[in-house]
Amino acid sequence: MAKNNKETAILLIHCADQQGILAAVTQFLNKNDGNIIYLDQNVDAAESLFFMRVEWELDQFAIPREKISDYFDTLVARKYNMLYSLHFSNEKPRMALFVSRMSHCLFDILSRHMAGEWEVDIPLIISNHEDLRPVAERFGIEFVCFPKNQENKSAQENQEIALLRKKKIDFIVLGRYMQVLSDQFVSQFPNAIINIHHSFLPAFAGAKPYHAAHERGVKIIGATSHYVTADLDAGPIIAQDVVRISHVDSVDNLIRKGRDLEKIVLSEAVYKHLQRKILVFNNRTIIFN
Amino acid sequence: MAKNNKETAILLIHCADQQGILAAVTQFLNKNDGNIIYLDQNVDAAESLFFMRVEWELDQFAIPREKISDYFDTLVARKYNMLYSLHFSNEKPRMALFVSRMSHCLFDILSRHMAGEWEVDIPLIISNHEDLRPVAERFGIEFVCFPKNQENKSAQENQEIALLRKKKIDFIVLGRYMQVLSDQFVSQFPNAIINIHHSFLPAFAGAKPYHAAHERGVKIIGATSHYVTADLDAGPIIAQDVVRISHVDSVDNLIRKGRDLEKIVLSEAVYKHLQRKILVFNNRTIIFN
Amino acid sequence: MAKNNKETAILLIHCADQQGILAAVTQFLNKNDGNIIYLDQNVDAAESLFFMRVEWELDQFAIPREKISDYFDTLVARKYNMLYSLHFSNEKPRMALFVSRMSHCLFDILSRHMAGEWEVDIPLIISNHEDLRPVAERFGIEFVCFPKNQENKSAQENQEIALLRKKKIDFIVLGRYMQVLSDQFVSQFPNAIINIHHSFLPAFAGAKPYHAAHERGVKIIGATSHYVTADLDAGPIIAQDVVRISHVDSVDNLIRKGRDLEKIVLSEAVYKHLQRKILVFNNRTIIFN
Amino acid sequence: MAKNNKETAILLIHCADQQGILAAVTQFLNKNDGNIIYLDQNVDAAESLFFMRVEWELDQFAIPREKISDYFDTLVARKYNMLYSLHFSNEKPRMALFVSRMSHCLFDILSRHMAGEWEVDIPLIISNHEDLRPVAERFGIEFVCFPKNQENKSAQENQEIALLRKKKIDFIVLGRYMQVLSDQFVSQFPNAIINIHHSFLPAFAGAKPYHAAHERGVKIIGATSHYVTADLDAGPIIAQDVVRISHVDSVDNLIRKGRDLEKIVLSEAVYKHLQRKILVFNNRTIIFN
Repeated sequence: MAKNNKETAILLIHCADQQGILAAVTQFLNKNDGNIIYLDQNVDAAESLFFMRVEWELDQFAIPREKISDYFDTLVARKYNMLYSLHFSNEKPRMALFVSRMSHCLFDILSRHMAGEWEVDIPLIISNHEDLRPVAERFGIEFVCFPKNQENKSAQENQEIALLRKKKIDFIVLGRYMQVLSDQFVSQFPNAIINIHHSFLPAFAGAKPYHAAHERGVKIIGATSHYVTADLDAGPIIAQDVVRISHVDSVDNLIRKGRDLEKIVLSEAVYKHLQRKILVFNNRTIIFN
Repeated sequence: MAKNNKETAILLIHCADQQGILAAVTQFLNKNDGNIIYLDQNVDAAESLFFMRVEWELDQFAIPREKISDYFDTLVARKYNMLYSLHFSNEKPRMALFVSRMSHCLFDILSRHMAGEWEVDIPLIISNHEDLRPVAERFGIEFVCFPKNQENKSAQENQEIALLRKKKIDFIVLGRYMQVLSDQFVSQFPNAIINIHHSFLPAFAGAKPYHAAHERGVKIIGATSHYVTADLDAGPIIAQDVVRISHVDSVDNLIRKGRDLEKIVLSEAVYKHLQRKILVFNNRTIIFN
Repeated sequence: MAKNNKETAILLIHCADQQGILAAVTQFLNKNDGNIIYLDQNVDAAESLFFMRVEWELDQFAIPREKISDYFDTLVARKYNMLYSLHFSNEKPRMALFVSRMSHCLFDILSRHMAGEWEVDIPLIISNHEDLRPVAERFGIEFVCFPKNQENKSAQENQEIALLRKKKIDFIVLGRYMQVLSDQFVSQFPNAIINIHHSFLPAFAGAKPYHAAHERGVKIIGATSHYVTADLDAGPIIAQDVVRISHVDSVDNLIRKGRDLEKIVLSEAVYKHLQRKILVFNNRTIIFN
Repeated sequence: MAKNNKETAILLIHCADQQGILAAVTQFLNKNDGNIIYLDQNVDAAESLFFMRVEWELDQFAIPREKISDYFDTLVARKYNMLYSLHFSNEKPRMALFVSRMSHCLFDILSRHMAGEWEVDIPLIISNHEDLRPVAERFGIEFVCFPKNQENKSAQENQEIALLRKKKIDFIVLGRYMQVLSDQFVSQFPNAIINIHHSFLPAFAGAKPYHAAHERGVKIIGATSHYVTADLDAGPIIAQDVVRISHVDSVDNLIRKGRDLEKIVLSEAVYKHLQRKILVFNNRTIIFN
């Protein structure tokens, strides 16, 4: 299982828990000379469910990559009624970034991208305001502005979707994009829109969470990244973090402290997504190691 | 300001913010030879409010302790429209502990008491079940059981209040007492009932918060200690803490991890209360350093 | 893999990483009708090592429990050059507690034991002082005092070892036992003595860590539980936790805040040990999920 | 004490603790119509020292700003043997950034600067490598490269100092600058060089702390920002933070997780420095609220 830079394949699997699943999957790979370099699995005993992520090298693997899905389906998945997805390490995902006026998440993501921290392409930044166009230009990324109001929202979203499709975008990151996406938009990108909410969800869902946290007098504030679903601020949680505050902190201080949380938590979620280490089940996430 | 074990007086003060308050209070103490050993104050700029805790030694203080309140009121407090409370370090508060069946908070509090961590008397443990009587007996503390149901609740509470009065109880700690106290009971002990709620409030108020946290798929759980008010789980928050969890954790694991949070957070709140370092204003707490 | 209260067997395994290990182990269990209820494994890619913990139910298992070790050795372990240990869920480990004068760790452990949080027997408390005898008596546990000085240390340790053997003690917990154990003593209980050090190791090893932390002006303090080895404060780390401090905190405050850390971190380590979720390799621990 | 955007003055004060200091300072300001908008003070009882930060509005203040230092010195400071420094909110400090090849701290600082989070000018970036010149240019900041080796180090430092003086630099931030500055250089900027060390100091001082942390098997890693002194990695600590790790994390993972810590902790220290909320005494920092 020595790690190197060979091309790999990744399987994310879930199914009802049954005897022999793990042996079946690992034997399928071993028999065909797939050197496993990563394996994480767990069982939800309460609901009797099995979850697994396995990654193996392709160079010695007996099955050609275009036939892996077919073979795995026939030889393993059907027998255990598995749901699975197959990924390849050399497929670089394409991300679109949605922003409004605040720049901290945008800068954090672009600087990671530029520093080579992530394997991702970012061909497109979309905003409802012009404010951050200069930042996008500074990083040499196309910036398209779709201002929205109640009348044009649906039309603008349709244009956004068309552009996203044209640019072959795989997933969307909302970097403090201060607009609610319609159900119709969300349904086009299931488990592929990552949002950052500036509170410790489910506390303080909705608008102005820092004001609400200050009003309630909490001693800790948080940030939550999650996949966007039709249900506002209620999608599967990917990552959360918190920071201590006290009565001394004004709302402005909460906003300042929260910015650091937001950008770190959002980037953590994007990183896990890029690594294909997230499996969504029943509005919850399994985050593999 | 050298600290030692001399008897001290403590003033907790709040009022509208005005020029000269701090100088007025410190001069009042200095002029009368009160050696200040602690001072913490802050201003809520948004609401223009001033909060202060000051502690000074009584041995050289020119004003006899029984007249301090009168003098301070006349010479300082009225001028600035202050609300204040005066405490003395040699008054040992008397705590009653309310418990049900879980012992972790009870043990944690009794072991601190026995080890001399806290300056407090605990003459009474009240429960709605008999289960923890042996623990109380082991520590030599009177244990009185008031089983409650819908019919007898009001009568039982009246008996509890009578007993608490008879025992000269200053404040009550609910160590996972699984009963809601009536408004009438609560109104008898304003800012003097400390509860521990087993979630990161305001998330998961109400019953079964660990089940709710598991269902929602959060990545962090918490515990919250607060003063009890008529509004369930909505009183002023004193202390909070959190611990990371993952998809691997069953509800039972959340309960296990939560126990440690609960006992530590509750004891932290009790400690701050005993030190007279909590000031309640507008359903929020100021926790002095 | 449904969890219930059937008797289980646990294997802790490590070896050089090789293809097929995981399949070999899981097949061995599946073929013999051992229902796996827990499996966690990981590979240290840098050193090419494989670590695993697997637990399965014994009721349907084809191999009688007294022959499991033999069969596993012959059929699996030898082939892969595995080192392994086998445990059974119905073997309740026997713990001895060593304490000096501070009671917080002692109370925390005894209250968990009494509340049934842990599957453990505690037949013996050993101390170098008489101070905590009343606590031991309160909990009905035998307390034996071995006062030590430079002259009698070796003789006293020999008596302690004899008593520990007589009481069939499996592992020892040092609950702020303020004495260094000799190499000779330590060598009798490899990976079976758990200590709590009151600092964030390797910072502030040795005596008076809170004083050293205050002197250095750190902003966070910690506590570290580890297995005791001949090398003082340098054994394999099991658990660590930290708490924020500030310039406001006196050394006494660090000691107070540290007590809570110490007892929680020590108990976390004991819990993991009791669950056989710790594997020691190369002076480091693998802590299974 | 209502907060607004008026020009303010800030006093940082320390002296031996004595009765009446606080009253003396606040009276001096009140009598001269200085509206106090911030006050934080504390007493180190063990060493009998008094520390204070006070900030007041200048618009109504009776003493002209150029005479404040003189008046305060004569009327207050001499009497109590105070050491103090006086600052004005409209003086924007000038920062120089030193970097090597890693960009995460650089990006984090520049993006905060560009977003207007900080009141600071950054006229100069100095490096020992050319790698990050494009980033500096992207943000329109002068980038000067001083490659160093054992022979030219002293000469290069002299050139750096000359350039820093010419650019009227007030303080220096080392954003993972992988070169030790000479004592002679450091002595030119007392308490004005902020470094980020990629460990939880004093653990793992020196080179390769993530490798050392992995080798030791710690369960938590940290980052530490501190003022640079002649004693390597031993200067006064400003801020620290930590993150949990496990046996699963490779050294590369520690480095990845550490990057986020480093940039956040360094920026936190810079923010406190910019706010003149740090007082250094006896190689420790007082960080005002």
